Amino acid sequence: MDEVKDKCGVIGIYDGKDNFDIARLLYMGLFSLQHRGQESCGIAVNANNEILSHRDMGLVSKVFDDNILSMLKGRHGIGHVRYSTCGASCKDNAQPIIVNYKDGMMAIAHNGNLVNANELRAKMADNGEVFLADSDTELILKRFVYYIAADHSIEKAVEHTMKEITGSYSIVISMPGKLVGFRDPHGIRPMIIGKYKNTYILASESCALDTIGAEIIRDVVPGEIIIIDDDGLHSYQTKTNGCSALCVFEFVYFARPDSYIDGANVYAARHRAGRQLAIEHPVQADLVTAVPDSALAAALGFSYQSGIPFGHGLMRSRYVGRTFIQPTQEMRDSAVKLKFAAIRHEIEGKRIVLVDDSIVRGTTTRLIVQALKNAGAKEVHMRISSPPVKYPCVYGIDIATSKQLIASKLSVEEIQRMIGADSLGYLSIEGLNQIPENVNLGLCTACFNGKYCTDED
Amino acid sequence: MDEVKDKCGVIGIYDGKDNFDIARLLYMGLFSLQHRGQESCGIAVNANNEILSHRDMGLVSKVFDDNILSMLKGRHGIGHVRYSTCGASCKDNAQPIIVNYKDGMMAIAHNGNLVNANELRAKMADNGEVFLADSDTELILKRFVYYIAADHSIEKAVEHTMKEITGSYSIVISMPGKLVGFRDPHGIRPMIIGKYKNTYILASESCALDTIGAEIIRDVVPGEIIIIDDDGLHSYQTKTNGCSALCVFEFVYFARPDSYIDGANVYAARHRAGRQLAIEHPVQADLVTAVPDSALAAALGFSYQSGIPFGHGLMRSRYVGRTFIQPTQEMRDSAVKLKFAAIRHEIEGKRIVLVDDSIVRGTTTRLIVQALKNAGAKEVHMRISSPPVKYPCVYGIDIATSKQLIASKLSVEEIQRMIGADSLGYLSIEGLNQIPENVNLGLCTACFNGKYCTDED
Amino acid sequence: MDEVKDKCGVIGIYDGKDNFDIARLLYMGLFSLQHRGQESCGIAVNANNEILSHRDMGLVSKVFDDNILSMLKGRHGIGHVRYSTCGASCKDNAQPIIVNYKDGMMAIAHNGNLVNANELRAKMADNGEVFLADSDTELILKRFVYYIAADHSIEKAVEHTMKEITGSYSIVISMPGKLVGFRDPHGIRPMIIGKYKNTYILASESCALDTIGAEIIRDVVPGEIIIIDDDGLHSYQTKTNGCSALCVFEFVYFARPDSYIDGANVYAARHRAGRQLAIEHPVQADLVTAVPDSALAAALGFSYQSGIPFGHGLMRSRYVGRTFIQPTQEMRDSAVKLKFAAIRHEIEGKRIVLVDDSIVRGTTTRLIVQALKNAGAKEVHMRISSPPVKYPCVYGIDIATSKQLIASKLSVEEIQRMIGADSLGYLSIEGLNQIPENVNLGLCTACFNGKYCTDED
Amino acid sequence: MDEVKDKCGVIGIYDGKDNFDIARLLYMGLFSLQHRGQESCGIAVNANNEILSHRDMGLVSKVFDDNILSMLKGRHGIGHVRYSTCGASCKDNAQPIIVNYKDGMMAIAHNGNLVNANELRAKMADNGEVFLADSDTELILKRFVYYIAADHSIEKAVEHTMKEITGSYSIVISMPGKLVGFRDPHGIRPMIIGKYKNTYILASESCALDTIGAEIIRDVVPGEIIIIDDDGLHSYQTKTNGCSALCVFEFVYFARPDSYIDGANVYAARHRAGRQLAIEHPVQADLVTAVPDSALAAALGFSYQSGIPFGHGLMRSRYVGRTFIQPTQEMRDSAVKLKFAAIRHEIEGKRIVLVDDSIVRGTTTRLIVQALKNAGAKEVHMRISSPPVKYPCVYGIDIATSKQLIASKLSVEEIQRMIGADSLGYLSIEGLNQIPENVNLGLCTACFNGKYCTDED
Repeated sequence: MDEVKDKCGVIGIYDGKDNFDIARLLYMGLFSLQHRGQESCGIAVNANNEILSHRDMGLVSKVFDDNILSMLKGRHGIGHVRYSTCGASCKDNAQPIIVNYKDGMMAIAHNGNLVNANELRAKMADNGEVFLADSDTELILKRFVYYIAADHSIEKAVEHTMKEITGSYSIVISMPGKLVGFRDPHGIRPMIIGKYKNTYILASESCALDTIGAEIIRDVVPGEIIIIDDDGLHSYQTKTNGCSALCVFEFVYFARPDSYIDGANVYAARHRAGRQLAIEHPVQADLVTAVPDSALAAALGFSYQSGIPFGHGLMRSRYVGRTFIQPTQEMRDSAVKLKFAAIRHEIEGKRIVLVDDSIVRGTTTRLIVQALKNAGAKEVHMRISSPPVKYPCVYGIDIATSKQLIASKLSVEEIQRMIGADSLGYLSIEGLNQIPENVNLGLCTACFNGKYCTDED
Repeated sequence: MDEVKDKCGVIGIYDGKDNFDIARLLYMGLFSLQHRGQESCGIAVNANNEILSHRDMGLVSKVFDDNILSMLKGRHGIGHVRYSTCGASCKDNAQPIIVNYKDGMMAIAHNGNLVNANELRAKMADNGEVFLADSDTELILKRFVYYIAADHSIEKAVEHTMKEITGSYSIVISMPGKLVGFRDPHGIRPMIIGKYKNTYILASESCALDTIGAEIIRDVVPGEIIIIDDDGLHSYQTKTNGCSALCVFEFVYFARPDSYIDGANVYAARHRAGRQLAIEHPVQADLVTAVPDSALAAALGFSYQSGIPFGHGLMRSRYVGRTFIQPTQEMRDSAVKLKFAAIRHEIEGKRIVLVDDSIVRGTTTRLIVQALKNAGAKEVHMRISSPPVKYPCVYGIDIATSKQLIASKLSVEEIQRMIGADSLGYLSIEGLNQIPENVNLGLCTACFNGKYCTDED
Repeated sequence: MDEVKDKCGVIGIYDGKDNFDIARLLYMGLFSLQHRGQESCGIAVNANNEILSHRDMGLVSKVFDDNILSMLKGRHGIGHVRYSTCGASCKDNAQPIIVNYKDGMMAIAHNGNLVNANELRAKMADNGEVFLADSDTELILKRFVYYIAADHSIEKAVEHTMKEITGSYSIVISMPGKLVGFRDPHGIRPMIIGKYKNTYILASESCALDTIGAEIIRDVVPGEIIIIDDDGLHSYQTKTNGCSALCVFEFVYFARPDSYIDGANVYAARHRAGRQLAIEHPVQADLVTAVPDSALAAALGFSYQSGIPFGHGLMRSRYVGRTFIQPTQEMRDSAVKLKFAAIRHEIEGKRIVLVDDSIVRGTTTRLIVQALKNAGAKEVHMRISSPPVKYPCVYGIDIATSKQLIASKLSVEEIQRMIGADSLGYLSIEGLNQIPENVNLGLCTACFNGKYCTDED
Repeated sequence: MDEVKDKCGVIGIYDGKDNFDIARLLYMGLFSLQHRGQESCGIAVNANNEILSHRDMGLVSKVFDDNILSMLKGRHGIGHVRYSTCGASCKDNAQPIIVNYKDGMMAIAHNGNLVNANELRAKMADNGEVFLADSDTELILKRFVYYIAADHSIEKAVEHTMKEITGSYSIVISMPGKLVGFRDPHGIRPMIIGKYKNTYILASESCALDTIGAEIIRDVVPGEIIIIDDDGLHSYQTKTNGCSALCVFEFVYFARPDSYIDGANVYAARHRAGRQLAIEHPVQADLVTAVPDSALAAALGFSYQSGIPFGHGLMRSRYVGRTFIQPTQEMRDSAVKLKFAAIRHEIEGKRIVLVDDSIVRGTTTRLIVQALKNAGAKEVHMRISSPPVKYPCVYGIDIATSKQLIASKLSVEEIQRMIGADSLGYLSIEGLNQIPENVNLGLCTACFNGKYCTDED
């Protein structure tokens, strides 16, 4: 579809003798991370060194119910939400992955994507290993267990594993007596540490901590290994090249506005993006409106900076869900019409600034611009709160291939004509780099400029 | 739950030799009316005087797919969305109701509620009639068919039926060669006429016409009977007592913001409600924010009038769906936490005006106020864009019984203390009456003041 | 398909202060009547004059579970199993039908078929009545309620209704304080009365009584009305023309072998049919084998009479269920191969007598004969324990239309050639009439000779 | 439950340029093997060295439909049916197991059980391997792939694997360009080779070959490895200790009567068991009847030998399926009543010989004996066509643990009293050993005498 999508969210909780209902806390955390993956989800808990788990296709609120959660009793556990493009066979790919190994059972959940998966898989296959799915996570898990079986400590086993894998990974593992988490040396995908009484939580985003009622301790540092057990939280720092590259799209689009990532608030970053956009691409207009829901903060920022009043000119249906596949272009256009509706009364006769966070193929944007014009807009000035997406993401974001990315084929002027807008302005990369206030990592902007941080590893 | 809910939406389409795919147009229309009922839906089309239909529990996008729509080929047809409180047995209550009668097959769909249903049912039962469900619609249908069988014209049969029934009703009927629609003499529930090329559409709200691509012709007048056939649209006006009483909650909460009802735009009405609320209950504050999604327009109106900036301080999860039933109050509180999240960065240290459209039980409101305070709000000033709901609705709106309505038990001051707000202001009934600009009907405000228009019939 | 099928089974139970779990008894009874209809089933119980019910498509063991039965608490109730040819819309046709009427709620279940349904429906429609489905049962119910509302006693209301309807019907009705049962004046479909402690049961077959643990009291007499209430069982005999016509196919094929119908045991009747068949169509052979399961008794009878040993030469898969529809003849042949398998070791080199109870289209028979030949049978002598089916059944049996009935188109010799058998013998109508030992009713043989008992009513 | 159950059936087909629809042939074969496992099933085909597969819980006729089969296009493939006691998590255990390995993709299906699985798994885990399920098959697969990766030929890799595993296994593997099958050195579980035009088939039983239309070539020999590719069928014989031990329960109960296993016909073996039983345990009686369906052949054999006529005195419902779990003993008794019904007319006043193939717990037998007595049997003489089952099976048969086996706790006399029979006779082990006429392997009778063939390996 015509959207940039995240692929996963993870969470891990280790009960610090609070006697919490771990499965229910994991459920609440996963619920808050639902925006990171809507296709499948799963929870695995460690109950006296046996792993109990439940995974299925569907939303967290549908996959789990009271009965299922009641059966998932344990001291610690992990959860996962996932979006994937792999079709029907996806059921087998739902995480957490659960295995038996030398010391008992282990569950793993992973957000990210390896860039050297094929080489690594080939090498392992040459040694006689078998693989169940086309999954990077299985590779990481097997190398980790290999080092464990070779009598390394957990932290050393992770460190050895990290030396063999290149790419993005924020990972949680539940194993006998321990909850383990680690983040790739560039910190491409986020991971944060929270605490609720004596209980530690690791999660992709801080919103999961808020929902549970936990407080933020700090972010996991790029290359850091966290091990939580009955003695508390232990940290081990692996060597990195010092070049951090947190995915900037977390701020632009994926993350929940109430989350803090590596020190910066997402809502505030989006508001700043809107303000910066108004500075970079000012325009005379009567109303600022947003493509709901994600561009709302940026539109408010644009309105704040420009002084042009903000209005609710475009509605998004709360009921769209998975409409059936539309065979013709005409029917696909109808789907957009079902999803978005312009409020004529607010739009008619006005010059509109329409703020969105990105343009992928441009087809949806074109139909929305047209909807505003049909509703009587005199002018439609499109403003995008991120730079043109020109390069594919190799770190776990579902961006269309280069061929489908309109900005890799057309100039800004051509895109403007194609979408039928009266003007079009994108946020600059320089502007973008400034938007997450107080962020304490460098940012990955590879999808805008093609500079992949792992190329130099 | 803690909400006021509409119970139904209807649509009817008669193809004026445009060879449209009627079922697909009905689907698109129903999709736009989904906010009027999410429990069940159905479509019935007339194909050479045989009715083909499909009905099921669930959202329009789930109940119908391409195959099903392809089988529903017909010249004219009707559709229905429904919310109901009746539990598992609801499947049997899904509409349209389809029957065989003297001249063939007929389908009927109804939005509204009769107040003399019990008396009428008892009278008919005494004559030996049987009833399949506890449904007002079945009564109306049977009286209509009775008069048809007694050799009355369609319009006379409707007129005779209308004399026997008291309450609210906007009805569409598909019968051999005709699409029939009529609206109760007070016009309590809305109904509008649209046209797309030569094809007429009747629908609960104009947003259905927009989605289909049809233009608005005019609203059906209270007491008016519309008959559409190959000769076009025919109108018959029945006698009314001149006292119209359109449900004002359509403007406050139910209807889609882009709809026009009896001449007035819904979004504009809500914006005006917010402005009027700022006049009636001014307050010193730093930020206006809304309980999403329905109170957004009123909050923007409050911000516009008061000059206090609008911000996005409260998020609503797009993934809530039907969470499993929560047995304890604690768990129910968790459900609210999953549904709403405060954005600390926007809220912290500020005096907040929180705008919502109504308070039913007050429990959700209390938790939201608390969430804002937890996120660091210095003060929370609650503003409600409608008067206190004190009386049950007998015209088809799902309002809790008087016992559950907080405003029927507590004073405004008591409610303020109960929800933990620093101040609380409701829109006055006088203020409310002015909000739908250019509305050409009187308004029903029975749930606020207990004056039921049909009491004088 | 290539089979004669029954369409329904009914049961009713009135708890005589035994405090039985009525729903569970109805479940066990329906389970035993499953062979009379496998498409849908339902139970309705009267709980303080409210009817609680559950109906769905599928087998009794699948439609009901412990939870559902636990919710169906009541003093008396009825159940129904149904086979139908009507496709997807069948869900609406599942019985019992439940209605509200003047004195409360009523549930009805019906086995049989009216021959004057169209005339009756037209007459009622002219009076302004509406009909929900194409169901005879709805007509009977409405006439009954009409007479009840006209202040007739229950027995008089049934009697008036019976005067208006022609055809076959064994009916049970649960209404406030009463369980009612009646059987058509010719006794075409069976119905029997049982008693378990103080509790009366009405059922299509005695096997339902056995399963429950009840004893047989007697059969309901043609034209008899049974009313059971707290005062016990009351019988009312309506006038009949004395000509009884119990469906003989109950003995040939439908009924369970352990059932007794109107005085005669089904297994014994089938065994006699096989003996009579051996007398009418003797043959030199080495082994008698049966088309399982229904022809087993007849094959044993043939073996007994002829002295030719019985062997298990043909197996029927217990796992066939509903295989997916086979588009080509070749695939349909495969389906027969999946369903039946010859046991070569038993068949090879022998002259086989193959006994079946009927031939409908002949296609299945042809494939079975061929399977035996492929397994090395030297000769295959087909023997059918009923006469050639030449006429459609108008009393509720699913026999193919005349066009599809092979015996209405081909002579016995032609059928023999078509199925590839070395000889073919059908039981004579005279022989058939003698098979149910001690049966106390006349037999309907309309499907063999075209003499329909209701033609003279 | 109160039954001995097989756990699996396998099939493999390699298309010899006949352009058959492999998936449909696998479907037909699996359908015929359904009696070997009803819980889950699966098919995997090799399409240009990619494996396409479908697996699910349920019967073959439910899990597969036309669409699914049409997508499983390939040159060769395997199928599996499975019964398992593992509960809800079984979905993950459905076979075939599909993996990626060094040379591409591989699918494996297994009938049998390893006795050294725990030791082998522990050894592999110590080397750092992970395991997805508690499955013997995964172990075999991994050792096989290990040897393949170590550059052994397929036959050598199988041979090395066979040296490491002890127990029963009949296995089929689909790998790039090859279909591989092998059978354990004792031949505990059966496997047969068939041919249909140029296409080879490996299957658990010959009935699968019949259904497909293939001819029997020969059985796979204990310890034999079969490799089929475009050059035809290749056989490699591994060294065995010469002690073969085919499971005798295949003849007594599991296998389909029309199957031939290692030279002997199953139906004939059962008939001989009945004849031998009549010699060993003669009795004066009026009627021989069988517990349907599996004891039918033995009952006919008993009747043949004794001269006592065979009759159909006991019916088995075709509709039982999975009734919901019965919490009380009383309800469990009801389940037996629903499953079996005595035909009073055939039983009343007679001395009955009741033949069954085994007694596990005795509870079902007790209820059946009682049912016959309730139906008027003067005497019930129980005859069992196999010896008392006293020892658990470690080779893949689901026999209750020793504690639940009635014959491991009670003497024959005690069992007779417990089941309420007038006499009880079991077939002797000596008698049993003679029943499979012309069988060319030794027989495993460990469950009767505790002599496990693999103890001496």
